[in-house]
Amino acid sequence: MHECKSLKYVEMCAIIIGVKAEIISVGTEILVGSILNSNQQYLSQQCAHLGLDVYTHSTIGDNPPRLADALETALMRSDLVITTGGLGPTADDITLKTAADVCGFLLTRHQPTYAAILKLLNNKKSKMTPHIARQALAPAGASVFPNRFGTAPGILAAVLRGGEKKYLLLLPGPPRELSPMFEKHVYPALRRLWPNRGVFRMRSLKFSNRPESDIAVRVDDLLNLKPPVTMGIYARPGEVELKIMSKAPSAARALNGLKRIEKAVLKRFPGEIVLMDEETLEERLGALLMRAGKTLSVAESCTGGALGSLITNVAGSSGYFLGGVAAYQNRIKSDFLGVSERSLKKYGAVSFEVAEEMAEGARKAFRSDFAAAITGIAGPGGGTAQKPVGLVFIAAASVRGVMSRRHFFIGKREDIKAKAAKAALLMLVEILSGKGRKQPDHGPKNQVRV
Amino acid sequence: MHECKSLKYVEMCAIIIGVKAEIISVGTEILVGSILNSNQQYLSQQCAHLGLDVYTHSTIGDNPPRLADALETALMRSDLVITTGGLGPTADDITLKTAADVCGFLLTRHQPTYAAILKLLNNKKSKMTPHIARQALAPAGASVFPNRFGTAPGILAAVLRGGEKKYLLLLPGPPRELSPMFEKHVYPALRRLWPNRGVFRMRSLKFSNRPESDIAVRVDDLLNLKPPVTMGIYARPGEVELKIMSKAPSAARALNGLKRIEKAVLKRFPGEIVLMDEETLEERLGALLMRAGKTLSVAESCTGGALGSLITNVAGSSGYFLGGVAAYQNRIKSDFLGVSERSLKKYGAVSFEVAEEMAEGARKAFRSDFAAAITGIAGPGGGTAQKPVGLVFIAAASVRGVMSRRHFFIGKREDIKAKAAKAALLMLVEILSGKGRKQPDHGPKNQVRV
Repeated sequence: MHECKSLKYVEMCAIIIGVKAEIISVGTEILVGSILNSNQQYLSQQCAHLGLDVYTHSTIGDNPPRLADALETALMRSDLVITTGGLGPTADDITLKTAADVCGFLLTRHQPTYAAILKLLNNKKSKMTPHIARQALAPAGASVFPNRFGTAPGILAAVLRGGEKKYLLLLPGPPRELSPMFEKHVYPALRRLWPNRGVFRMRSLKFSNRPESDIAVRVDDLLNLKPPVTMGIYARPGEVELKIMSKAPSAARALNGLKRIEKAVLKRFPGEIVLMDEETLEERLGALLMRAGKTLSVAESCTGGALGSLITNVAGSSGYFLGGVAAYQNRIKSDFLGVSERSLKKYGAVSFEVAEEMAEGARKAFRSDFAAAITGIAGPGGGTAQKPVGLVFIAAASVRGVMSRRHFFIGKREDIKAKAAKAALLMLVEILSGKGRKQPDHGPKNQVRV
Repeated sequence: MHECKSLKYVEMCAIIIGVKAEIISVGTEILVGSILNSNQQYLSQQCAHLGLDVYTHSTIGDNPPRLADALETALMRSDLVITTGGLGPTADDITLKTAADVCGFLLTRHQPTYAAILKLLNNKKSKMTPHIARQALAPAGASVFPNRFGTAPGILAAVLRGGEKKYLLLLPGPPRELSPMFEKHVYPALRRLWPNRGVFRMRSLKFSNRPESDIAVRVDDLLNLKPPVTMGIYARPGEVELKIMSKAPSAARALNGLKRIEKAVLKRFPGEIVLMDEETLEERLGALLMRAGKTLSVAESCTGGALGSLITNVAGSSGYFLGGVAAYQNRIKSDFLGVSERSLKKYGAVSFEVAEEMAEGARKAFRSDFAAAITGIAGPGGGTAQKPVGLVFIAAASVRGVMSRRHFFIGKREDIKAKAAKAALLMLVEILSGKGRKQPDHGPKNQVRV
């Protein structure tokens, strides 16, 4: 799965220093799909921190001529070439030897590394072999970084290419070896090579249950900004993210650039619930309920508990969440929530009326200040022409009454459930914050698009 | 994170047919580390199945000249060039246009795609815009693959390069769009282009809530098998998977090799609940309930609805799942489930006694044949020396009475919730199938470790 992370981490750091970096992963196991290559993401994030621009990622198998080609090309076009993998003791660990051939390195034994490996072998009552000893080789004059969680060290060596000084950084493949080494030794070394001359700031603005095109069309011009301040758009199920990136010589100026675009974006979405950086909808809801000193309960049909589960992902949610009823059958809707037989017959379980009666029933049964209810058709079966798969009604009840919205979600069963739960959170947040899109009461004109 | 899979996969896959493939991911968000690129692993696995040799992976930002360069190079050296990403409606979606420039494609409107997008927009009461319409363009004569979970279709087009016929395959970036499209349309199309000359079969055996070492120690010898039949072990939170891979000239022989190892494994885990291939615990539970014609309800405290949500991920679960109560407060446990004030006071909400009363209460309130209950401390707050974060009691009630288990789960709040829900599913499956590890009744000696 794609795992998307907000780039808040970069809010701390990085620069434009015009250093082109590229990352080459070495290993046939990656090319056949045995391994998910997380090193590229990790190293890209680290380079972003350091203000180095990563221009390309590539992966090459354990094949010396192809790796030699890739290294040659990379050294011609980039200032820093980072490799991961292929430094171990086995026959298919080809990175160091190939790099030495390409760069004309003279490999000699690095005594501290040799001593460290010997010590490790002694602890394990194993013996040194020529294969293992190979891992203590390093180019004369290179920086060698110890590996606390393995045997092969990291290596940083200067190379002359096209009359320019380039750098080759060889790192071990296993993430548990690579990341501690990077953070302890490599990051400081790169920082010394290319001292930071500016500051990079980032901000995520996240919109819930909106189509990407809805957002894109209103900020089209801002998506084409040129550095030092730029903005990108990324869509995930039920969420669209605008990511603003700003680079400047000082933190204050970088932040200014960021705020300017942030304001421009927010102005185009008046009353919209916009989440910042790592914030989630359930956290926003929790904070609003806590501040107001109010309690919440839920009634779920097609989501089966997904809404309650999201709400209780927030630490401290027991301070405002009383509980919920998953009413997967009509009888349960009546018994636990007091939904009338009449409404179930006349309008069907998936209707404005039943959603509203569920919300009111939950509010009464749990004696909560607010209640939300979800009823819909998650599919793949159960849809009709009038009530297709993806049709979901969401209601919210409070002391001021009850309201509901009709939604139509696309995707698989689990996507529809997740979007419905998110839509219920959004409705509650809108009510509690007095913001949001047009307040709907029930009727097809109030359909909310996702 | 790296999800590590055995290298044996390599030895197994691909019947060599001499087709060179390469994969290019398009997206600046990958180069800055915002996204973990899982598509490369997915596509590599698919290519391995198809017997296509993936020679390189690369990632290029949303930059037309650099993407054009990469496409040129790739088309010169490879028979099949696969791109992912950059097919959407926004300005930074550059893949189709760049590919058309490089290959001299004439882009015309693909009517079925245009009609599908229109229909989707109608359902959502949205309007067609020129940006959205761009996604219905395709090279004249190309194969166009519909996107069930998004708007941009996949495209497979032939290209002449260096006097040879090459193929360019453009796929959407979001994995939830890419994988269903690949499996339904792309895989068969590639199979027709390059028919396989051998057969590869795989089988997953999955163990729930067991430590990897528990499994590994019993199948140590089978983990060192040599081709044509091999087995690897992979651990995920709450699950350990044994993957058996078999290669042979015919399907029957490949299957035979597989079955032989499968039998050997299962023999070593008598009475254990073992899931096959894609099967989930909630599916197994659903099948058992359906077959027995029995119904189920749940009562959840710390999981807040996560168990009900898992159960209702199964299509057709409305046939046996009546509903649940999320009882996040003691008052709700009493009001809805009839948990006695005395037990809550004497044993505390997190105890064998309360778990059992919750399960019995749910069974009675919902009038279901079976009921499961979860009560525990998901953290990060709320733990004590006697009842630390991670302590969870799980009970199951049926006509034959009620039983419970004590668990101790490690991880973050969401991990603990997920493991608790899985443990409840497992307990129900064990009871319904009459299998499973030693049946516990309550008492600390029955602690189940995960």
